[in-house]
Amino acid sequence: MSHNSFGHLFRVTTFGESHGPAIGCIVDGCPPGIALTEADIQIDLDRRRPGQSKYTTQRQEADAVRILSGVFQDERMKAQVTTGTPIALMIENTDAKSKDYSDIRDKFRPGHADYTYWAKYGVRDYRGGGRQSARETATRVAAGAVARKILTHLYSKEVNIRGALTQMGTETIDRKNWDWDEVANNPFFTPDAKAAARFATYLDGIRKKGSSIGAVVEVIADGIPVGLGAPLYGKLDADLASAIMSINAVKAVEIGDGMAVATLTGEENADEMRKGHKGAPEFLSNHAGGILGGISTGQPIVTRFAVKPTSSILTPRKTIDIDGNETEIFTKGRHDPCVGIRAVPVGEAMVACVLADHALRHRAQMG
Amino acid sequence: MSHNSFGHLFRVTTFGESHGPAIGCIVDGCPPGIALTEADIQIDLDRRRPGQSKYTTQRQEADAVRILSGVFQDERMKAQVTTGTPIALMIENTDAKSKDYSDIRDKFRPGHADYTYWAKYGVRDYRGGGRQSARETATRVAAGAVARKILTHLYSKEVNIRGALTQMGTETIDRKNWDWDEVANNPFFTPDAKAAARFATYLDGIRKKGSSIGAVVEVIADGIPVGLGAPLYGKLDADLASAIMSINAVKAVEIGDGMAVATLTGEENADEMRKGHKGAPEFLSNHAGGILGGISTGQPIVTRFAVKPTSSILTPRKTIDIDGNETEIFTKGRHDPCVGIRAVPVGEAMVACVLADHALRHRAQMG
Amino acid sequence: MSHNSFGHLFRVTTFGESHGPAIGCIVDGCPPGIALTEADIQIDLDRRRPGQSKYTTQRQEADAVRILSGVFQDERMKAQVTTGTPIALMIENTDAKSKDYSDIRDKFRPGHADYTYWAKYGVRDYRGGGRQSARETATRVAAGAVARKILTHLYSKEVNIRGALTQMGTETIDRKNWDWDEVANNPFFTPDAKAAARFATYLDGIRKKGSSIGAVVEVIADGIPVGLGAPLYGKLDADLASAIMSINAVKAVEIGDGMAVATLTGEENADEMRKGHKGAPEFLSNHAGGILGGISTGQPIVTRFAVKPTSSILTPRKTIDIDGNETEIFTKGRHDPCVGIRAVPVGEAMVACVLADHALRHRAQMG
Amino acid sequence: MSHNSFGHLFRVTTFGESHGPAIGCIVDGCPPGIALTEADIQIDLDRRRPGQSKYTTQRQEADAVRILSGVFQDERMKAQVTTGTPIALMIENTDAKSKDYSDIRDKFRPGHADYTYWAKYGVRDYRGGGRQSARETATRVAAGAVARKILTHLYSKEVNIRGALTQMGTETIDRKNWDWDEVANNPFFTPDAKAAARFATYLDGIRKKGSSIGAVVEVIADGIPVGLGAPLYGKLDADLASAIMSINAVKAVEIGDGMAVATLTGEENADEMRKGHKGAPEFLSNHAGGILGGISTGQPIVTRFAVKPTSSILTPRKTIDIDGNETEIFTKGRHDPCVGIRAVPVGEAMVACVLADHALRHRAQMG
Repeated sequence: MSHNSFGHLFRVTTFGESHGPAIGCIVDGCPPGIALTEADIQIDLDRRRPGQSKYTTQRQEADAVRILSGVFQDERMKAQVTTGTPIALMIENTDAKSKDYSDIRDKFRPGHADYTYWAKYGVRDYRGGGRQSARETATRVAAGAVARKILTHLYSKEVNIRGALTQMGTETIDRKNWDWDEVANNPFFTPDAKAAARFATYLDGIRKKGSSIGAVVEVIADGIPVGLGAPLYGKLDADLASAIMSINAVKAVEIGDGMAVATLTGEENADEMRKGHKGAPEFLSNHAGGILGGISTGQPIVTRFAVKPTSSILTPRKTIDIDGNETEIFTKGRHDPCVGIRAVPVGEAMVACVLADHALRHRAQMG
Repeated sequence: MSHNSFGHLFRVTTFGESHGPAIGCIVDGCPPGIALTEADIQIDLDRRRPGQSKYTTQRQEADAVRILSGVFQDERMKAQVTTGTPIALMIENTDAKSKDYSDIRDKFRPGHADYTYWAKYGVRDYRGGGRQSARETATRVAAGAVARKILTHLYSKEVNIRGALTQMGTETIDRKNWDWDEVANNPFFTPDAKAAARFATYLDGIRKKGSSIGAVVEVIADGIPVGLGAPLYGKLDADLASAIMSINAVKAVEIGDGMAVATLTGEENADEMRKGHKGAPEFLSNHAGGILGGISTGQPIVTRFAVKPTSSILTPRKTIDIDGNETEIFTKGRHDPCVGIRAVPVGEAMVACVLADHALRHRAQMG
Repeated sequence: MSHNSFGHLFRVTTFGESHGPAIGCIVDGCPPGIALTEADIQIDLDRRRPGQSKYTTQRQEADAVRILSGVFQDERMKAQVTTGTPIALMIENTDAKSKDYSDIRDKFRPGHADYTYWAKYGVRDYRGGGRQSARETATRVAAGAVARKILTHLYSKEVNIRGALTQMGTETIDRKNWDWDEVANNPFFTPDAKAAARFATYLDGIRKKGSSIGAVVEVIADGIPVGLGAPLYGKLDADLASAIMSINAVKAVEIGDGMAVATLTGEENADEMRKGHKGAPEFLSNHAGGILGGISTGQPIVTRFAVKPTSSILTPRKTIDIDGNETEIFTKGRHDPCVGIRAVPVGEAMVACVLADHALRHRAQMG
Repeated sequence: MSHNSFGHLFRVTTFGESHGPAIGCIVDGCPPGIALTEADIQIDLDRRRPGQSKYTTQRQEADAVRILSGVFQDERMKAQVTTGTPIALMIENTDAKSKDYSDIRDKFRPGHADYTYWAKYGVRDYRGGGRQSARETATRVAAGAVARKILTHLYSKEVNIRGALTQMGTETIDRKNWDWDEVANNPFFTPDAKAAARFATYLDGIRKKGSSIGAVVEVIADGIPVGLGAPLYGKLDADLASAIMSINAVKAVEIGDGMAVATLTGEENADEMRKGHKGAPEFLSNHAGGILGGISTGQPIVTRFAVKPTSSILTPRKTIDIDGNETEIFTKGRHDPCVGIRAVPVGEAMVACVLADHALRHRAQMG
């Protein structure tokens, strides 16, 4: 049992606080002989990096990753490859602003973990949110980059794990406009160009009020073969749910049709099958989101999650302080008006990690 | 790692198939000295037992539990108490009907795990769903009864974990009518007496057509103190999500406001605080569902989940058989038209198990 | 974490007390499609069964195992095979004598776990040793039979895991006389026929005095390929050490030359290599006991362990009772004068379980 | 499951190779509010540091540890304290000599893990032994320093975990001369001043021949209360055995009388009890090494282990190369003629880590 690890055969253990010297993780279980460089990981980190638009925190971090172990420049393979030993990844904190934290040190932000941390541990690194800062998610993205390498190594280049923002507050995308190429063209990671324009106007309004807003993120994994997962307590969707719910601010996880299955009849929910390409089984629909009985069907794996608005807002809220006195709090300074945006690459990374873990588990079970 | 266990310090490992000799579980980690008899467990099992109304499967099972280990009649305590050793619980299968299974043996029911099991394992006990049968959930309910004992032992009698059916297909309850006492008065475990009448009419229609329907279940845990859980990968809600998603047919899990947080602003989402009873912190709302930053707040813990309709329906659906040929299938015989109903006590049990696990973990962390 | 499980991908969870209704285990992680019947398991159980000679306890137990789940009579395979779901094994206790236990209930046997159990748990099933009884080892032997099936399935029939008693008190075997076929010909599982005669005389003396004696057991696994295990914390020998030390009464574990490596020079310890059969690497000696750097070398894997004498003896010993008063105790009734004898099949089983676990882990790591 | 972690509630995950940029570990599970600085850890690291006498490797490493996370300078506690979040510790490699490694790159040292690593992984960082280098043990010592802090925090200053070299090749200490204060006075960590002189002469001979020699290390933990551990698979001694066997070059582990219990009778082995100080139970002997039935007795916990000689020797040995050709190898360069010496602080650290883990587990079980 660990409070700072996830996964089993592909196992990630993270460390670090927002304003400490560094954050990082140890990635354990990566098979040997896979080409891996810092640049491979940096690509993903750069997508999550803060300060890239006015819609995310203005903290400036290069988020430059350093591989401390687990790779080796092999003469015969003529490449830097994994060796099967643990891969330690470190990202130094460089823009941890020294400022007056007495307000959040002494008062609990409503909707934030300030109160529960203090009540449980009696001591906390409150600077920038400490361990609870979304900054920790950079280590997940780094680990996810290694997970993607493993999946490609095992299943060919067709594995593709992509996330998208599908809802921001009351604004939603039109699924008819879905275009994966569009995701990189706007600061919201949204696949609907028209929605991107609406999101911009909407979030400008939120941001200027010093408010914040929730969002929905969808992650789709293509190219995963049938058979990953296991019944009941080893269900692929149970592990996805846990991994996604472990991301800061997430309050709900859906697989396939998610909450909407409550209104479906058995006839509607049944993903019918026929003989497909080269005689392989093919589904006529994907209400199941690519998972039946906890095991992947070979269809795209569809995960969706809701991210709550950040509790750092300019409007004063009633609260208490660490001595139990009633007071008010409002939060100045850098923050994301919609933390759901940067949750997109984080969600992708978590899905990649869970799938890499199950890919290795499947090998153990089935050879 | 295990595919048939859940929990860490309170750990449950289950076994059994629908039509094998028995189902059961080993409950490991129960502290010593807690009074426990078969009757204590039977109360919960009787709530989940099939064949109690026309709205659940007509299979007749006494679901009589037998404690095989882990308890001892102690002279000094003058009671049968737990000893700290593993508690093995066994329920014999008595109404495993011998019938012709050639249809589901050879054809895959759309929306069912038939296909993925076969594709992964190449062999499966297809009789009555085998390991995938909802019958396995009886072992969870039995384990949950032990978990409840632990929570009461640790936190007094105020711990109360109750579930309710809040939606069936397009029919939903009116939350203004919520009355916990009503849950035991109708065959749907719903807390709204008026909704119960509507659910009866609605489900009669579904049942007569040989169809099935999805549902939403809500579980609320009262009396849990502040401090259970841990940040990030040890989040109480991450474990709840995993445990709930491990129940057959569940496709989504929500904590507190769940998916609806996407539409909330930071102001709306903030559960403000004040000085409450005896100076203790008190919240003015519970959007968080009793969990902030992965740690319990002391408020009621609110979990909600969606259950898909069973894939055993009378209407023929297109499918393939184990040789890859296209065919059709429809399912006669005993089944639950709304499996969400019997998921209510199962959901309660899973929440109880997760909370017992975290209660013990909290002791380890904090003394 | 579990206090009653061992292994990772091949994972065994046991339950049961000496005088409860039954003992048993859940074996999780067995690959599907392996032929398995109760008779396959019974063969191994019969070797460990009590009451077969005057040198073991006179308790009469058939030790008849029942498979409750995880197997299926498959029409196409024309055999009862594993399905990949958990295999529950149960052995009912039939000769749990009802007698007066007030002596061991109230007094602590020196050298026994009576005191530590009581000090830790405050309650214990003292009848026949309760959970601490060597009776629990029957479940290990049953699990080991499944592990052997997996190893044969993966690596052909050449896998052979055999144990032998090599020392009893001051009497030791002569390794020049080692004959595996001899092991089944004497009640001591010793491979040296001449030593068997000496052991008989020696143990008769011990037994008649109501005393007991320690022993050394050696287990050798042949046919395991190079590559099982992992460096450092995943070392095959670390897992063997833990598994063997988990057997009641074991106080030391050796791999290969064991404690004697302390006196070896680097030259002596080096197992030199040459080109062997079909060009494959071959070792000229096996000081390493078939494990280097935590990974199997392809040579026989050699584990040795010491079993202390049982603390149930006729000679009175000074002790205290549960109220802290000084007193004396001696133990009448059925017991093994040399528990090391029946530890032979148990040691084999534990080695088999660890190897099966690592065989599956190796598949996960390396494909 | 992890191949690079150990412990459960106190869990350590290590990373790093001999010649990579850094080694380190993440220590998870440390309770909050314990004062901890880099200096606290450095004290223990300095004892293990290489290059301090002619009897250990001449590699020059400051082994300066850096705490990257998990501590916070708390105003109210007026100290740097642990926060309950993961503690990442990093030690940079500074004297990783760039030299010609073609010999050990292509040839397998007999008695070394070269062959098994290569056979398993197909690629390895052979420089200085890579992951297999004893250099990794510095991270264990660092983690052990945190473990000691926890034990002192829980059980007062009386907890004392000390190791000693008791045998080097054919030279053994005289237990009558045992003086803990002597351990710091000689380069062998031996408690017998007279033996230290003999060891010096003996090891000079070994060293000058370019040979190496095995050793025995004993670790004794004082001040541990009764009750840590659990029966069977949660045995304190099973975890000690695993932890100790995970140290490079260890081939045997003993608890208490160890292998010698084979020659004991039940009468001799029984540690008799009487009413001791303030009426507390007291033992008249400690054959059990402070553990009965897997649970600590309150007596000193005694662990002993044998360390094989290093395989890096000057005498040529027959071997094969990575292409399977027969050849010879001998190893020049820096190495420890008796790696058992520096295993003393490593053994202490592993015992401390296991005890800290069980101390937290005990709190979870028993409150």
